[in-house]
Amino acid sequence: MSEKTKLITPRLPRGFEDRTPGEIAAVGAMIDKIRKVYERYGFDPVETPLFEYTETLGKFLPDTDRPNAGVFSLQDDDEQWMSLRYDLTAPLARYFAENFETLPKPYRSYRQGYVFRNEKPGPGRFRQFMQFDADTVGAPGPEADAEMCMMMADVMDALGLQGKYVVRVNDRKILDGVLSAVDVTDEDQKLTVLRAVDKLDKFGVDGVKQLLGAGRKDESGDFTKGAGLNESQVSGVLNMFDFKIDVTRSAEGTGYNLSGVGHPNLLMTDAIYDAAASLGQMKVLFDAAGYGPDRIKIDPSVVRGLEYYTGPVFEIELTFKVQNEKGQDVVFGSVGGGGRYDGLVSRFRREPVPATGFSIGVSRLANALKLTGNLGATEPAGPVVVLVMDKAETARYQAMVSELRQAGIRAEMFLGSTKNFGKQVAYADKRNSPIVIIEGSQEREQGILQVKDLIAGKQAAQAITDNAEWKAARPGQFEIRREDLVSAVQKLLSEQ
Amino acid sequence: MSEKTKLITPRLPRGFEDRTPGEIAAVGAMIDKIRKVYERYGFDPVETPLFEYTETLGKFLPDTDRPNAGVFSLQDDDEQWMSLRYDLTAPLARYFAENFETLPKPYRSYRQGYVFRNEKPGPGRFRQFMQFDADTVGAPGPEADAEMCMMMADVMDALGLQGKYVVRVNDRKILDGVLSAVDVTDEDQKLTVLRAVDKLDKFGVDGVKQLLGAGRKDESGDFTKGAGLNESQVSGVLNMFDFKIDVTRSAEGTGYNLSGVGHPNLLMTDAIYDAAASLGQMKVLFDAAGYGPDRIKIDPSVVRGLEYYTGPVFEIELTFKVQNEKGQDVVFGSVGGGGRYDGLVSRFRREPVPATGFSIGVSRLANALKLTGNLGATEPAGPVVVLVMDKAETARYQAMVSELRQAGIRAEMFLGSTKNFGKQVAYADKRNSPIVIIEGSQEREQGILQVKDLIAGKQAAQAITDNAEWKAARPGQFEIRREDLVSAVQKLLSEQ
Repeated sequence: MSEKTKLITPRLPRGFEDRTPGEIAAVGAMIDKIRKVYERYGFDPVETPLFEYTETLGKFLPDTDRPNAGVFSLQDDDEQWMSLRYDLTAPLARYFAENFETLPKPYRSYRQGYVFRNEKPGPGRFRQFMQFDADTVGAPGPEADAEMCMMMADVMDALGLQGKYVVRVNDRKILDGVLSAVDVTDEDQKLTVLRAVDKLDKFGVDGVKQLLGAGRKDESGDFTKGAGLNESQVSGVLNMFDFKIDVTRSAEGTGYNLSGVGHPNLLMTDAIYDAAASLGQMKVLFDAAGYGPDRIKIDPSVVRGLEYYTGPVFEIELTFKVQNEKGQDVVFGSVGGGGRYDGLVSRFRREPVPATGFSIGVSRLANALKLTGNLGATEPAGPVVVLVMDKAETARYQAMVSELRQAGIRAEMFLGSTKNFGKQVAYADKRNSPIVIIEGSQEREQGILQVKDLIAGKQAAQAITDNAEWKAARPGQFEIRREDLVSAVQKLLSEQ
Repeated sequence: MSEKTKLITPRLPRGFEDRTPGEIAAVGAMIDKIRKVYERYGFDPVETPLFEYTETLGKFLPDTDRPNAGVFSLQDDDEQWMSLRYDLTAPLARYFAENFETLPKPYRSYRQGYVFRNEKPGPGRFRQFMQFDADTVGAPGPEADAEMCMMMADVMDALGLQGKYVVRVNDRKILDGVLSAVDVTDEDQKLTVLRAVDKLDKFGVDGVKQLLGAGRKDESGDFTKGAGLNESQVSGVLNMFDFKIDVTRSAEGTGYNLSGVGHPNLLMTDAIYDAAASLGQMKVLFDAAGYGPDRIKIDPSVVRGLEYYTGPVFEIELTFKVQNEKGQDVVFGSVGGGGRYDGLVSRFRREPVPATGFSIGVSRLANALKLTGNLGATEPAGPVVVLVMDKAETARYQAMVSELRQAGIRAEMFLGSTKNFGKQVAYADKRNSPIVIIEGSQEREQGILQVKDLIAGKQAAQAITDNAEWKAARPGQFEIRREDLVSAVQKLLSEQ
């Protein structure tokens, strides 16, 4: 390459990241544990491609009111707009509608993969990230929603997070009922209220109050316009957070009693009672299956930001404390959630198709597991490295490596151009190599090999940079006969 | 949804496809086997995001001479062009350059994931497909290329394809030397020759001859302009296919002799002898490691279509016969390949950075394994289904399902809205359910359950559609006590 050629700077677009071997292994192990729970619950995998027609996906992202904002879109040869999926739910709705005739109904599926958001990236906020979803399509009752909540709890248990999470459950219809009771009927205004309430975790009650009213100015001075509710409407919505729903089984054990529903300062509507009854039925199922409020809790402050939910909504909250950017103790918060979305498939089919499901944010959950010490091994075990002491004899070294590999041992010949002994050992060291195999001309003549135990000799090796010094010190090093290569390496590996 | 709302047709853009549970499981198992071989060879995983800056990827796709053709590209907020990766090599070059200071050198990595081509889709030709690559960056010698070939052979063996493949090896410099010998110096013309020779598998010698000369008209009447070589130049290039390279170890066993190189009708240049010598060194390594020409074969007709290769190139060919669209017997052909690309990383860094690697086309290989019967299980085992005989008693059914799941048994409660017994059993049947659990009011009063063995009773069950008929026939059905649910299901599953 000529000196005059302009070099390209090696870098990624903002909001995208590479994944290292440790991350890949740890996240892979985490995903396997989640998958096992999903499969135990009867869910089967399905995978859709990353592109869909833009009209197929629809526009259900929060915080994006411009057309196509939030999603990566481009026009195909035939002028039709395609988008990269922004979640795993909209593609499922398309898949279910497209394969309606052949799929079992109800249809339980799980899906894992990358989704894309064309949004401003920030710390821990990427434009490509992984989700792991489970959904049941074609099941109308609260039994299906309850199952989702129990499965989320079981996933957290399977990951070793016992006592560190709670699945919080509510019904979107409670908010609908409250809004109707306080005379909010405009759809845009309703949506702004929804997204304001969804910010409770982030901004607290005061922040939500501002977003329900005139608006909120953030620390950078940016102003977010509020829903414009008056004072009595705002307090009506905030009262919702204090709702209580208690369920007890009837004396005969064949039904349940709903008690303690509602709030003294708010008009209860039929919609609210209906939603409460459905939450009550879910609670009966939680009790029957042994999930107490320490694991699954009814909590009327949960609304979820996505517009398409039509009934129960749920959220996995990790309850342990972490420090935020300002050094304050805050709960780790949500690592996933979902809800019932009975309208999404109806975009493709006349008949009503009920559906419910949830999504786990894989990277965020992995980050949580790292903090609690529940994320697995981070570095792969290194290979046995056969050093190249004599370039003319690579065939001999290659034969050794092949013998080791055929015996199932992770092994490699040093492939760099350096003849420097210390640099070759330093390479092995950097690879976390457990053992180095050395055959110089003397060894070759005697039919022997030098075996260097890098685990035992690691500390001493760092100071040694040349062959002569090495031969004097020989830390953790011993001789074997050439023909004993495989058995000697196997023995040493089992002892290390 | 109102009747007047326009329904959206559920469909995918051309060239994209969904993957079913069977495909996901089978391909997953195949990928695990490949991964184990890569890891045994000392390769570690790395993963890059799907987007890169367009200038990072460069333009190395065959058959795309328009700017940005072949790749999916879009402009970011800051006006910079980003593209979806079209292979896993260009992102690796960026990754290596970006992390040059910290990575071990040589750097062995494997990468698996989707790549995208914005091309006309066809049968078996998709716009999103999976590749599984391995590369060594920073290793200049033929030892690194030879290792790639042996690893490709070991992958085929690990997949059960013994005797059904051959890894074919050549050096791009032989073509370069031939072109120089026949006075082809124009870069565009060279590239056209390269792509013509790469079509040998597809079009045969006659087709390549036309593409080297004036051009070739395909069956649809489309004309592809040729390289415009004259007759003696064309025969010079075609002579290349008859090159022979034989290597024997010298009597002392410390070197090798190269013999039988070249072709009587063609001027041998230094470049050709150099390439032949490098192929000879690789052959010595293949012999030392026990890979005969039945597994790895030097074959001068292999050139690979990608422009960026600078030395050895290799290809995995599956040699068993399949029928093409016209019903003719043809060899299955290439399922992967690669080569040395010493210039790719140099786009980012001043110093020369040698690199070599290969890519496996995952879907195409899976398709081959399906044909040879080497692809694994295709359908997941179904769940135990607890029927809902009485909607008011879902808590009881939920408790049963939870007991089964807690014992590690795949189980679910029927979540559909139908009360029809036959439809619930038909659902279980469609799910490949092994066992159905039934508790009606009579069973509840007696503290028992009906267990239906769907494997034993499958044939009989298909004819039965109502409860009364069922109770008379009871194929493969027996009673257990309620408290024996888990143990009885475990016993039956182990016997099935």
